[in-house]
Amino acid sequence: MNHAYKEPLIVQEVAPRDGLQIEKQWVETGDKIALIDGLSACGFTRIEAGSFVSPKAIPALRDGDAVFNAIRREAGVIYVALVPNVKGAERALAARADELNLVMSASQTHNRANMRMSCESSLAGFGDVVRLVEGAASKVSLNATVATAFGCPFEGRIDEDRVVSIVRSYREMGIAGITLADTTGMANPRQVARLVTRVLADVPAADLTLHFHNTRGLGLANVLAAYDAGARRFDAALGGLGGCPFAPGASGNICTEDLVNMCEEMGIPTGIDLQKLIALSRTLPALVGHEVSGQVAKAGRNCDLHPVPEYVRAI
Amino acid sequence: MNHAYKEPLIVQEVAPRDGLQIEKQWVETGDKIALIDGLSACGFTRIEAGSFVSPKAIPALRDGDAVFNAIRREAGVIYVALVPNVKGAERALAARADELNLVMSASQTHNRANMRMSCESSLAGFGDVVRLVEGAASKVSLNATVATAFGCPFEGRIDEDRVVSIVRSYREMGIAGITLADTTGMANPRQVARLVTRVLADVPAADLTLHFHNTRGLGLANVLAAYDAGARRFDAALGGLGGCPFAPGASGNICTEDLVNMCEEMGIPTGIDLQKLIALSRTLPALVGHEVSGQVAKAGRNCDLHPVPEYVRAI
Repeated sequence: MNHAYKEPLIVQEVAPRDGLQIEKQWVETGDKIALIDGLSACGFTRIEAGSFVSPKAIPALRDGDAVFNAIRREAGVIYVALVPNVKGAERALAARADELNLVMSASQTHNRANMRMSCESSLAGFGDVVRLVEGAASKVSLNATVATAFGCPFEGRIDEDRVVSIVRSYREMGIAGITLADTTGMANPRQVARLVTRVLADVPAADLTLHFHNTRGLGLANVLAAYDAGARRFDAALGGLGGCPFAPGASGNICTEDLVNMCEEMGIPTGIDLQKLIALSRTLPALVGHEVSGQVAKAGRNCDLHPVPEYVRAI
Repeated sequence: MNHAYKEPLIVQEVAPRDGLQIEKQWVETGDKIALIDGLSACGFTRIEAGSFVSPKAIPALRDGDAVFNAIRREAGVIYVALVPNVKGAERALAARADELNLVMSASQTHNRANMRMSCESSLAGFGDVVRLVEGAASKVSLNATVATAFGCPFEGRIDEDRVVSIVRSYREMGIAGITLADTTGMANPRQVARLVTRVLADVPAADLTLHFHNTRGLGLANVLAAYDAGARRFDAALGGLGGCPFAPGASGNICTEDLVNMCEEMGIPTGIDLQKLIALSRTLPALVGHEVSGQVAKAGRNCDLHPVPEYVRAI
């Protein structure tokens, strides 16, 4: 284990997008805006605030335009939008997203299941989005995600060479930002250390994001393995929202407040206000209609000491 | 991160003791025996099978004698009993426990709250148990736990020198086995690496157990930090049973099947049959009357692939 924990860890909050997209209970547009504004006040520098996909595919996020147009834009915060294609990218640009995030799975089968097209078609579509952004009036940055980079629920293991090769394709197309996503929580710390080390040979740490799910309980262990290998930016969702339709009852994204708590306890700077974050997380069960998987919002911080029981004083 | 993952990680299963002790629903003696027998068939070499404490203090485990007398003794498995004092130790010896586990908190306040006595009184009691075991007809081994070794919910931070000094006291009394327990899930990987390294200067790895709770989501990250620092033996509870009365809703002990899954994915040998373990874990909700926190029993192993949806074949 690396004992140099001085370097900041950047948390990109994804609950408004990857968290809310699978919720069955409709979250009102005003509540989404309030959630994002609350997150903007916690000290994040990056928030994935919504997506511009077909309302039929993801009805829970059909109000992306209204959300992006009404959120308070905190100075220094990059508001990211997930887009599946040129049409989505046009909507995202019109709604003044600061960054577009594209997604393709390393697994052909998962890409067909998730995006309903082959990887080759996905890459061709990425090219169209790159050209759109290059011609846009305002400066917008680009990120592309390699989903199922650590394993596929249909295909199993994913060849690391394939992931490295996809990352190079993204970069060669002019997409600077790269996310390696463990879409269904199949990564382990040993694998993470190995793949992150390889990808950091091609991609500067400032451009690389790791996206872990806690499906099998390994989310924070994977973060540490990636951080130790040199990664500095991580997706996380308030309350641990999100998840996978193939694992009912299992955890979703790694939980933001659990991640920030780990960093605080280890001395890794994040710039995020944990107390505000916990307060915001505690509003989630009412918003989504169920308990969420995050732990620190239930247990409190280490420094939230418990009163000494009365009987102890008599011993 | 240490890349030598060849050395076995020994899992001591503690669900029958640390898991069941806080359950409100009474678990029948026969069901406890069946659970322990099921665990014995999974490949564990150590099972904490019960405790011999006052039935008033822990009514859920009041049948410890009956349980120890009826379980099937698998060859090569050490069946451990937690004992609070000489009276408990006498009962445990009569019930043919292979090892006695004593507990004292590093925090005076927590020891008074949990054991209803000062640390000095606890240590004096340990001396009485050591003398009892030395005079016993059969060979019984001894272990002593430093509870709240990584933090106390009443006092907060615990001085590492104090933990090291308690460990030395235990060893000087003739207690070979040492457990460092993160009783309420306050440990972080950086702290774990530091304290384990210090304690391993005094205690051989074969005598040291780490006991982590997942209260704030850091359980498996802490295991890896301890393993990387040289620790080889870990407590875990099937389904992640257990917990802390001060953190309602928070996770309990680290989950055995999640730990074993992590080890399998990383290539660390445990000798435990993960598939049998998952099947056994899936019987827990009916046994205890509520969902449990373990993830792998819900999500399945990585190798449990999902069928490809019909529509994908047409793309």
